[in-house]
Amino acid sequence: MRVDGTPMRTIWPVAGRRVGIIDQTRLPHEFVTLELTTMEAAAHAIRAMLVRGAPLIGATAAYGVALAVTADPSDAALARAIEVLGATRPTAINLRWALDRARRRLAELPPGERADAAWALAAEVADEDVGINAAIGRHGLELVKRARKGDKPVNILTHCNAGWLATVDIGTATAPIYAAHDAGIPVHVWVDETRPRNQGAGLTAWELGRHGVPHTVIVDNVGGHLMQHGMVDLCIVGTDRTTASGDVANKIGTYLKALAAHDNGVPFYVALPSPTIDWTLDDGVKEIPIEQRDGGEVSLVPGRLADGTIASVRVTPEGSPVANYGFDVTPARLVTGLITERGVASASREGLLGLFPEKRGA
Amino acid sequence: MRVDGTPMRTIWPVAGRRVGIIDQTRLPHEFVTLELTTMEAAAHAIRAMLVRGAPLIGATAAYGVALAVTADPSDAALARAIEVLGATRPTAINLRWALDRARRRLAELPPGERADAAWALAAEVADEDVGINAAIGRHGLELVKRARKGDKPVNILTHCNAGWLATVDIGTATAPIYAAHDAGIPVHVWVDETRPRNQGAGLTAWELGRHGVPHTVIVDNVGGHLMQHGMVDLCIVGTDRTTASGDVANKIGTYLKALAAHDNGVPFYVALPSPTIDWTLDDGVKEIPIEQRDGGEVSLVPGRLADGTIASVRVTPEGSPVANYGFDVTPARLVTGLITERGVASASREGLLGLFPEKRGA
Repeated sequence: MRVDGTPMRTIWPVAGRRVGIIDQTRLPHEFVTLELTTMEAAAHAIRAMLVRGAPLIGATAAYGVALAVTADPSDAALARAIEVLGATRPTAINLRWALDRARRRLAELPPGERADAAWALAAEVADEDVGINAAIGRHGLELVKRARKGDKPVNILTHCNAGWLATVDIGTATAPIYAAHDAGIPVHVWVDETRPRNQGAGLTAWELGRHGVPHTVIVDNVGGHLMQHGMVDLCIVGTDRTTASGDVANKIGTYLKALAAHDNGVPFYVALPSPTIDWTLDDGVKEIPIEQRDGGEVSLVPGRLADGTIASVRVTPEGSPVANYGFDVTPARLVTGLITERGVASASREGLLGLFPEKRGA
Repeated sequence: MRVDGTPMRTIWPVAGRRVGIIDQTRLPHEFVTLELTTMEAAAHAIRAMLVRGAPLIGATAAYGVALAVTADPSDAALARAIEVLGATRPTAINLRWALDRARRRLAELPPGERADAAWALAAEVADEDVGINAAIGRHGLELVKRARKGDKPVNILTHCNAGWLATVDIGTATAPIYAAHDAGIPVHVWVDETRPRNQGAGLTAWELGRHGVPHTVIVDNVGGHLMQHGMVDLCIVGTDRTTASGDVANKIGTYLKALAAHDNGVPFYVALPSPTIDWTLDDGVKEIPIEQRDGGEVSLVPGRLADGTIASVRVTPEGSPVANYGFDVTPARLVTGLITERGVASASREGLLGLFPEKRGA
């Protein structure tokens, strides 16, 4: 996508074997880019969430390995890089996958050839993500066209940030939105603020704004009212994990929007790169464990004070307990379809196997 | 209810013809009581939302008239008080009703008798609210008993603040909760934070905590997940306006919780004093206009900084538009029952007319 007119990815190689990233912790209030020059800096960027989103974490880890073997191509340094980077976000599946791939590709090479191979691999990991998202965008574009009513803008509701900032480029849930906007189809996005971490208000609204996509921020309570009144034509969200039967684990609150969409006949789509399908799971509500996170994310809201400084304010009484569930599961029966890089499937085992026949009998 | 052991109302007469209130704008971070000594101070308290909630606004207006005629019992002063107080929150129905009642009661009396009559009337308005809420509590208590499973606490989810702080005592949605707690039935309340104004996190959690009722604050996105996993036995919310057919206008986001309750077989009740029933309306979704409020309520989150000062932080990007719908309408088909001061009715015209037969043919 473009940031105020300039095409950009969220991670990029810099001459002299360094890596550029955006410090996402300072968004939406400050747009600051940084250069990573060491593997430790890449690990810190993942751990401290300067970069976040499964695909972007995977690409950052791959570049982290490249930085490591550039400094020291020994077996010991490679092993240590994979260990340090692997411990930054233990549950991120793309992280493990990128590191396993780096290990396989580099371990068999003589040390003198590792640096070049590692930079090539990191570029490959990044480009693959971009390719997957571009394909999701192409397939999703057809759904946006279908939702269009006359000349009016297509109103699309999204939750959390499954956007450019979570990936290397374009995003997953946002890919059809950027594709439609760039194709000249008028779109308007309702952006759920997405408490407690406000990734909608802070990240999705920011990136849509930079690319020039019309949007409006709403609190998470509003979507049902909008759908009751015909103000949403289409919902598109991302997912952290989808079962083989089409149940969708995504940011907490997604299920409530899917219920409202179902109650009002609004199409509800989930955009997903196929690696996030967990072919071993069937019943998402019963089988997917839901992470409980620190209550401070609910009690303390970070933002910008009037004087420009960044600070957090407490919104709950001292002594009131807080519970913080990170995700919920939307049953397949509420999902109109799954937008993958291979096309749009019904949210069902048969639908998914139709697009991924190699998984049949797996 | 009790505040840390001491029985209190939210408004009370003070010797010397003054009126005590709580400055609710400083909750949950500071518990500060104030004395109103003039009608203008009462009007300011309503306008600046030091007191809020329809029943409490009505009682404050009645006390405001008492302060006015104590200072000057003339016809002109009475008329001016009704005008000034009536303009503080133009859409509050209880405000108009309390002022109309004061005008009828006082205008016919000789000026020398007005002050005593006005203080008596204000006490009457306050006591009537307490009586209505106590009756709602008694009827709702039976529903809490019915929802109990073995010896486990009854898990009740509520949205916004239809509590003690919105009324003169006990609250409406909270009345059955306080009644059950005081009767020794173990209850635990899931408190929706209720963005954008956070009346759940700031007010409901505070008052439940002061009375000693076990509770947990959650963001508005969480309730669906809890209901999917059997962690909610009962939902009880308040309402700003209920149609004759049982459609319920309440704080934005109520509809989403009602959908989740329906999807998971969780009883969803609405507590309401009968004056909030609008017998002239039928289809709430079509007929009830929904107030759009200032976007700053969404963009700027007030709370307490680490150093104890109160400040607001911006959570949205500069330049991103914000929409702020204040209420939504939950269709009667999603409401298990309406808890009124006369008993529990089904959310339907026949259900309501069964309890309020005098409205038949009205």
